[in-house]
Amino acid sequence: MMKALVYIGPGKKALENRPKPVRVDPMDVIVKITKTTICGADLHILKGDVATCHPGRILGHEGVGVIEAVGSGVSTFKPGDRVLISCIAACGRCEYCRKGMYSHCTTGGWILGNSIDGTQAEFVRIPYADTSLYPIPNGSDEEALVMLSDILPTGFECGVLNGKVEPGSTLAIVGAGPIRLAALLTSQFYSPSEIIMVDLDDNRLAVAKRFGATAMINSSDGKATEQILRLRSGRGVDTAIEAVGVPATFNLCEDIVAPGGTIANIGVHGVKVDLHLERLWSRNVTIKTRLVDTASTPMLLRMVRSRKLDPIQLITHHFELDQIIEAYDTFDKAATTKALKVIIEA
Amino acid sequence: MMKALVYIGPGKKALENRPKPVRVDPMDVIVKITKTTICGADLHILKGDVATCHPGRILGHEGVGVIEAVGSGVSTFKPGDRVLISCIAACGRCEYCRKGMYSHCTTGGWILGNSIDGTQAEFVRIPYADTSLYPIPNGSDEEALVMLSDILPTGFECGVLNGKVEPGSTLAIVGAGPIRLAALLTSQFYSPSEIIMVDLDDNRLAVAKRFGATAMINSSDGKATEQILRLRSGRGVDTAIEAVGVPATFNLCEDIVAPGGTIANIGVHGVKVDLHLERLWSRNVTIKTRLVDTASTPMLLRMVRSRKLDPIQLITHHFELDQIIEAYDTFDKAATTKALKVIIEA
Amino acid sequence: MMKALVYIGPGKKALENRPKPVRVDPMDVIVKITKTTICGADLHILKGDVATCHPGRILGHEGVGVIEAVGSGVSTFKPGDRVLISCIAACGRCEYCRKGMYSHCTTGGWILGNSIDGTQAEFVRIPYADTSLYPIPNGSDEEALVMLSDILPTGFECGVLNGKVEPGSTLAIVGAGPIRLAALLTSQFYSPSEIIMVDLDDNRLAVAKRFGATAMINSSDGKATEQILRLRSGRGVDTAIEAVGVPATFNLCEDIVAPGGTIANIGVHGVKVDLHLERLWSRNVTIKTRLVDTASTPMLLRMVRSRKLDPIQLITHHFELDQIIEAYDTFDKAATTKALKVIIEA
Amino acid sequence: MMKALVYIGPGKKALENRPKPVRVDPMDVIVKITKTTICGADLHILKGDVATCHPGRILGHEGVGVIEAVGSGVSTFKPGDRVLISCIAACGRCEYCRKGMYSHCTTGGWILGNSIDGTQAEFVRIPYADTSLYPIPNGSDEEALVMLSDILPTGFECGVLNGKVEPGSTLAIVGAGPIRLAALLTSQFYSPSEIIMVDLDDNRLAVAKRFGATAMINSSDGKATEQILRLRSGRGVDTAIEAVGVPATFNLCEDIVAPGGTIANIGVHGVKVDLHLERLWSRNVTIKTRLVDTASTPMLLRMVRSRKLDPIQLITHHFELDQIIEAYDTFDKAATTKALKVIIEA
Repeated sequence: MMKALVYIGPGKKALENRPKPVRVDPMDVIVKITKTTICGADLHILKGDVATCHPGRILGHEGVGVIEAVGSGVSTFKPGDRVLISCIAACGRCEYCRKGMYSHCTTGGWILGNSIDGTQAEFVRIPYADTSLYPIPNGSDEEALVMLSDILPTGFECGVLNGKVEPGSTLAIVGAGPIRLAALLTSQFYSPSEIIMVDLDDNRLAVAKRFGATAMINSSDGKATEQILRLRSGRGVDTAIEAVGVPATFNLCEDIVAPGGTIANIGVHGVKVDLHLERLWSRNVTIKTRLVDTASTPMLLRMVRSRKLDPIQLITHHFELDQIIEAYDTFDKAATTKALKVIIEA
Repeated sequence: MMKALVYIGPGKKALENRPKPVRVDPMDVIVKITKTTICGADLHILKGDVATCHPGRILGHEGVGVIEAVGSGVSTFKPGDRVLISCIAACGRCEYCRKGMYSHCTTGGWILGNSIDGTQAEFVRIPYADTSLYPIPNGSDEEALVMLSDILPTGFECGVLNGKVEPGSTLAIVGAGPIRLAALLTSQFYSPSEIIMVDLDDNRLAVAKRFGATAMINSSDGKATEQILRLRSGRGVDTAIEAVGVPATFNLCEDIVAPGGTIANIGVHGVKVDLHLERLWSRNVTIKTRLVDTASTPMLLRMVRSRKLDPIQLITHHFELDQIIEAYDTFDKAATTKALKVIIEA
Repeated sequence: MMKALVYIGPGKKALENRPKPVRVDPMDVIVKITKTTICGADLHILKGDVATCHPGRILGHEGVGVIEAVGSGVSTFKPGDRVLISCIAACGRCEYCRKGMYSHCTTGGWILGNSIDGTQAEFVRIPYADTSLYPIPNGSDEEALVMLSDILPTGFECGVLNGKVEPGSTLAIVGAGPIRLAALLTSQFYSPSEIIMVDLDDNRLAVAKRFGATAMINSSDGKATEQILRLRSGRGVDTAIEAVGVPATFNLCEDIVAPGGTIANIGVHGVKVDLHLERLWSRNVTIKTRLVDTASTPMLLRMVRSRKLDPIQLITHHFELDQIIEAYDTFDKAATTKALKVIIEA
Repeated sequence: MMKALVYIGPGKKALENRPKPVRVDPMDVIVKITKTTICGADLHILKGDVATCHPGRILGHEGVGVIEAVGSGVSTFKPGDRVLISCIAACGRCEYCRKGMYSHCTTGGWILGNSIDGTQAEFVRIPYADTSLYPIPNGSDEEALVMLSDILPTGFECGVLNGKVEPGSTLAIVGAGPIRLAALLTSQFYSPSEIIMVDLDDNRLAVAKRFGATAMINSSDGKATEQILRLRSGRGVDTAIEAVGVPATFNLCEDIVAPGGTIANIGVHGVKVDLHLERLWSRNVTIKTRLVDTASTPMLLRMVRSRKLDPIQLITHHFELDQIIEAYDTFDKAATTKALKVIIEA
């Protein structure tokens, strides 16, 4: 038996004893979790917002650990190997995987801690191990690598790559949670000349400044558009990254994107938004959405190893697996706890 | 004095006598128009929808002609040269022009027949002549080239290039007017394997079939989405081109675009549309808008010259400039006249 | 036992009886070959030019067949499935495969009929079956699909994609063997406005004309450069495809490429070539090499199915497996037999 | 009259009195030079290597200054404006300029200090001023901007852009002169994880380390290939930038480029090099050449203004125009003077 954080139903979760997972396919491995974390998506599940996740599910899609057992079809890993778990399971064979669009793998995608049991537990079964895990290089800080399961590739792929950030370009990030910081950190891989961070909270803006933002705008007065356009002499930004997931922030992005610019959506939206094509039809703009593919994970691993990216700065709190309910509480009340990402040691 | 078609005010136009235009800038030329045509945008102006176009304006932004006089700063053309007029005036010097985004030229763009007098006249003043006109190769069919002033670059740039049509990809074009045929013709430069044309009118669908569509769907029964998804075994299309400009057709594009696919907007929209990010946020889709830059005109000229593109098939009617009121009538009532593009000889 | 064409040593080959292959890895399948063909690379092996291919090897890396047996790790195929065999074996897991660069798969690549036994036999073992075979759609002409094992993806990827052929661009193909026709056919997916074919043989030029070339140049008089530059008014071609593999033809490509243009190398070179950087350093040119990755096979399958590509025209001769020695003879003496590709029925 | 540095003939130069330049075309301006510099290309001219540059020519193609007089066709500048001079004159109208390939402008390109008189003088005539000069933003350090006339766009466009440097990629720069430092500085816009600098001189390698190189290899022992491959565990580099212009260094780049990688040539070559296609034909490599287009100048100006790029560190010496012979001497003997770029105040 093992301990695991289980989704009981909308608004309810519990730390329970569960049977250790077993392999069900030749491509499976069993990983003993050493460190995991909590994602905004876990909070969405707990609100009952994710229809594919049924009560009884062990949550969690992030983490690092040690291979405990491997199936006969696994060629890349052996027991004892230390691995980074990707939030996306990729069969590596289907049409989408062949295009690097692992998020839409016909039998994988985001299934971990969603339609199959996840990583907030002592052990987890990982399907398609050869193409869903990454070996951890010797000497790595494993805690840092937990940030590579989801938040950093999501910020980079959905925000920075989709947003076509490039040297000398101007960027605005409209956000609230830690994902906006992942976009902020990884946007600097491309050396934009201006990074404007928009938030409702001065404390969070102070953090953004420390992470590299060049202008901070508190949008609580409803005047963010005017302020950004003034900063930009009326011209708007080349890239606007939406990292909240509500209509108002998406509309702000529509208002501030320059002709020829791009809106990159990271936010998980629950309702439709207004797209003002009566203004935008002639503005040569691009709007892009994406579920993270984690295709950038090898690159991110190289960036961490060469010290061009320091994910540790995203981590604010540490807990034991026994304290995971408290960890959820701390993460959920980020406004007061100032939590960004929390590490849970299993 | 010369004859010119003048916008009198919403719903009103007249063929009037006007002074011949004169040069006002060293980069100007005066062109004697030989052939022009009417665009859907001219009809928009006549409805009063285009705020930048004031009563008294000579309409028209398409045509071919002969250079009558050149300014001292013009180096590419001399009197007597036969030229193709681009609907977009480009100074060639500003930040946008330097990026090939001529539509947003800070002092040009779509000004012809809009904020300055246009081509539905015996003579027209063309600003920034060196970068807004193209020499007509000897032996060209000038009538064919009138289609390169606007409709073919618009269909190609806003629909095909923005839509990332590529060999073996699947494409749906949702449209009604002649612009959808420009997209249909030029999409075939990239050899998509399926081209689904969606329209409300069986006659227009028959034309589309003749122009190369591989499947024709009459959407008047409200079941276009189901039919397209059935054709595509539930997977949607790689590219959906919106060529109408109303919410319903844009929503259809949202419904049929496949994961990883692109919606390319050609339509001129008067009101906002619903963007269903609650479904699309995780679908890795791209939405692109664009006002034509006519950056593709030199390529289109080569395609016409090498007989890979035959614009003549877009032309259904011919009129003299004296008959331009009748030409407008024919073009406006395309449902009954079956007009695509009409040529007006000046 | 089964019949197989075996490489005996430089200059020697024989049709022998060999044991049927068996699976050695969970990802293997055994395919009963129905049709195969002969490649220029097989002739290279027979000359002793390919160090990785040892005497005793069954040759052949192209073909279609029926799955006879599958390993426990194979998820996409089952016995009885009809399949297209790719000349490139791809593990789907290594760094290169994850980038779609299957040719450099760390444990696969071009191994079939090279470092492992090949397809010119009644049966063949295919490693990494899930990512090295393609299902044959019902109703397909299987003979046509044999052309998708190697020659068509090679012409397309190494010549057309690497050469950045695009609508309205100009292209020269310098070649002799059937691969130049594969490049010629697939270049037309992108609608270049001019395709100049250079060859030493008027008969082969006549075939090129039939396949879509717009100008044919016999280079046997040593004046190809002058002729091409004259055709292009001195400006050179946007793309020059080298499809022979000797210094003279590569040098011709250097002489005719326009500023900003691309040389795409398909030829298998045995010796170094002179690169005239004293002329080219300032010409903004790109030179690209590639071993085919067969990443384009799914697209080519769609193009065949939608009748935008007709590979049958590449096939000139048919033989039974018993006649394979005669087939080699016919293929090797293409100048007199006018052979392009030969089909061998197993 | 004015003072100017004049090319007298191979090996000879002199500071002479010359008439002040006058405008000869409506697009011309006359610029009063405030600061200029010396380029390796000037040394090439002085050796007699540049056939287009005849004795009697005033040298220099870099600098900043103040507009003295403008032609009637100039719309962007007026007397008194402070401007950065691009080493490339671009008409903005020809086919190449319309593609942003200003280096091949049919009537411009690198003409300054080559086929027309240059900037090492008190005044200079600049043709096509609107598209060949850039306004200097208020508050800029003009000395820093002199580095944007040639060396920084050259290092960036020919080395970094052509080399497809990207986040997490590995890069080797093989060079000796200051241009390799321009490539080194601007490569960091894309955050490569490793930058290996190869040089023959330990002092220059120490400078490279200070500029951001992560590994320094002294190639004087002839073992650079082995050392680089060892550093890279045998895999080679994603990008190899050649910044010398001789066969040996180009061959080194061929030896160290990884499969799928790119060789970007900056060096001005006087003789052909060996291209080892017998090894490279199957390695999926790209080789790119380019004469700088200075299309990246606006971006570089933004990077300087936002303090992401500090060109001042390239400047080691200062001279008055009267001392320009001494300045040439200092620049030419960089091995002993440790000169990088020298500023000449006019």
